[in-house]
Amino acid sequence: MRIGLDVMGGDFAPQATVAGAVLALKELSPDDKIVLFGDEKQIKEQLYANNSSADDFEIVHTTEVIDMHDKPVKAFAAKKDSSISVGFEYLKEKKIDSFSSAGSTGVMLAGTIFSVGVMEGILRPCLAALIPKEQGGLTVLVDVGVNPDAKPEVLCQFGLLGSNYAKCALKINTPKVGLLNIGEEAEKGNAQSQAAHTLMKDEKACCFVGNVEPIEIFKSNVDVVVCDGFVGNLIMKNIEALARVFGKRGLVDDYVSRFNYEIYGGLPLLGANGVVIIGHGISNHKAIKTMILQSKNIYNSHITEKLRELLNN
Amino acid sequence: MRIGLDVMGGDFAPQATVAGAVLALKELSPDDKIVLFGDEKQIKEQLYANNSSADDFEIVHTTEVIDMHDKPVKAFAAKKDSSISVGFEYLKEKKIDSFSSAGSTGVMLAGTIFSVGVMEGILRPCLAALIPKEQGGLTVLVDVGVNPDAKPEVLCQFGLLGSNYAKCALKINTPKVGLLNIGEEAEKGNAQSQAAHTLMKDEKACCFVGNVEPIEIFKSNVDVVVCDGFVGNLIMKNIEALARVFGKRGLVDDYVSRFNYEIYGGLPLLGANGVVIIGHGISNHKAIKTMILQSKNIYNSHITEKLRELLNN
Repeated sequence: MRIGLDVMGGDFAPQATVAGAVLALKELSPDDKIVLFGDEKQIKEQLYANNSSADDFEIVHTTEVIDMHDKPVKAFAAKKDSSISVGFEYLKEKKIDSFSSAGSTGVMLAGTIFSVGVMEGILRPCLAALIPKEQGGLTVLVDVGVNPDAKPEVLCQFGLLGSNYAKCALKINTPKVGLLNIGEEAEKGNAQSQAAHTLMKDEKACCFVGNVEPIEIFKSNVDVVVCDGFVGNLIMKNIEALARVFGKRGLVDDYVSRFNYEIYGGLPLLGANGVVIIGHGISNHKAIKTMILQSKNIYNSHITEKLRELLNN
Repeated sequence: MRIGLDVMGGDFAPQATVAGAVLALKELSPDDKIVLFGDEKQIKEQLYANNSSADDFEIVHTTEVIDMHDKPVKAFAAKKDSSISVGFEYLKEKKIDSFSSAGSTGVMLAGTIFSVGVMEGILRPCLAALIPKEQGGLTVLVDVGVNPDAKPEVLCQFGLLGSNYAKCALKINTPKVGLLNIGEEAEKGNAQSQAAHTLMKDEKACCFVGNVEPIEIFKSNVDVVVCDGFVGNLIMKNIEALARVFGKRGLVDDYVSRFNYEIYGGLPLLGANGVVIIGHGISNHKAIKTMILQSKNIYNSHITEKLRELLNN
């Protein structure tokens, strides 16, 4: 498999990204190739610093970098020779099998839409996180950051994408889908969640169980929790923050330590016509390594093809 | 002082509310009187069950109940003899000094607006939570549930209310105000937070430090964190949920146990022209007791008057 990595994306790039790629390489098979997109000189310097050789990787030299202050759509169109733009070009032309980045999620979304595109009928792809449940198992939380603004019909579709992802990735036959809200009653919440509730109630293609409060993310009554990318990203970061705060006080066990972002590394963009993985901006080398290995898992489990098939039915 | 309590509000009313009032009475001074608003027969039954006498309280009999499914503004206007409507009437006529309820926050907001009203120039009052910081001290989180939809100018004003509340309640001279967001950069977030950021940056009356991510709620870089009532309520409930999940695993210490809602009981509605306290819907008798005692503290600390004075300057 050919695994694409944006070396320039993330708060600690290119140090953390190259170091992560070096670590990942040790756990991949000889058939796998990591394709690094970024400034060749910097990549080689970092490979040298990590006692690794450029011969072990494929380097695609790019001259531009899209940073966190750039407007996503504009930057993607304007910076044609950025690591993200070139990476998506490679993904579109099937010169790589997956593309991962810890850079701007907005740019990754724009890149996806303008290169490989989204699956037929999908309004907006979404980022899916897997949150460990208290009693074992995982909850799919969608969207966790790609769509800070999401219309009710988009939220409703996140339910569908999340439900099908739970079928493919978690092998749950009939995933129960809940809408994240400040109360269980249908009329609770803001205008967006009230409208989404009405749409989701009538959506035959997924098993909607109603509004759920945050505690349900950690329980077994629901398999998929839907929210927009603004709320989802805040919830994720709040969970990570508390796990860190508690951890620093020595309050940690196997369960709590699973809330560390290093463990999940990167998250798949559901609805994209290709394997697109987005990592945390603060990704260190361990998180980047996990993101690379995860992109292989996701590619090998054919989630993109399965999702497309399920959506067509 | 005359402390008003809506006996019919909350998931466990009237059992928990009356039991909480009985507990609170033991810690109040002989000059204090708890005024109970609700169904007299039920109140008396509960007082009897708690080995307490109706003589120790003042009971204002009401015949209607506003429940969680009622539309706030409509219900408040239609159910004139509900415990909340009559309670607010008493507050307006200064027959009580504070009014507390664990009932619908939407109805409490409507009740405030249509009875005592809001302070001059205030668009919407907001509910302020005090979140314990890791290194000691508290962070004011506003709004945590009264305004699930808040326009940018309303968010900007929450900063002002929160800042002045931090001055009064936490004795911080120049509170640092942050906007809760999914990234530190000004252009991050949804359309609402981007617009709010622009307004807050230009607001001279409070010290805006920019966007803050959830981890900052627990740190010392900021004193006030602003968000709308939908996000704030989810964040609060997410914190409580994790504290409970971790607590059940035996991961608990003095700091973590402070994230229990029973400890803060009720929260003040900032910007209301009177002492209005709103409790958690799931309030048990301990939380109700705390809410009642807190209403006395807030009344005695003259926060309403001080806030009004600060806003006029």
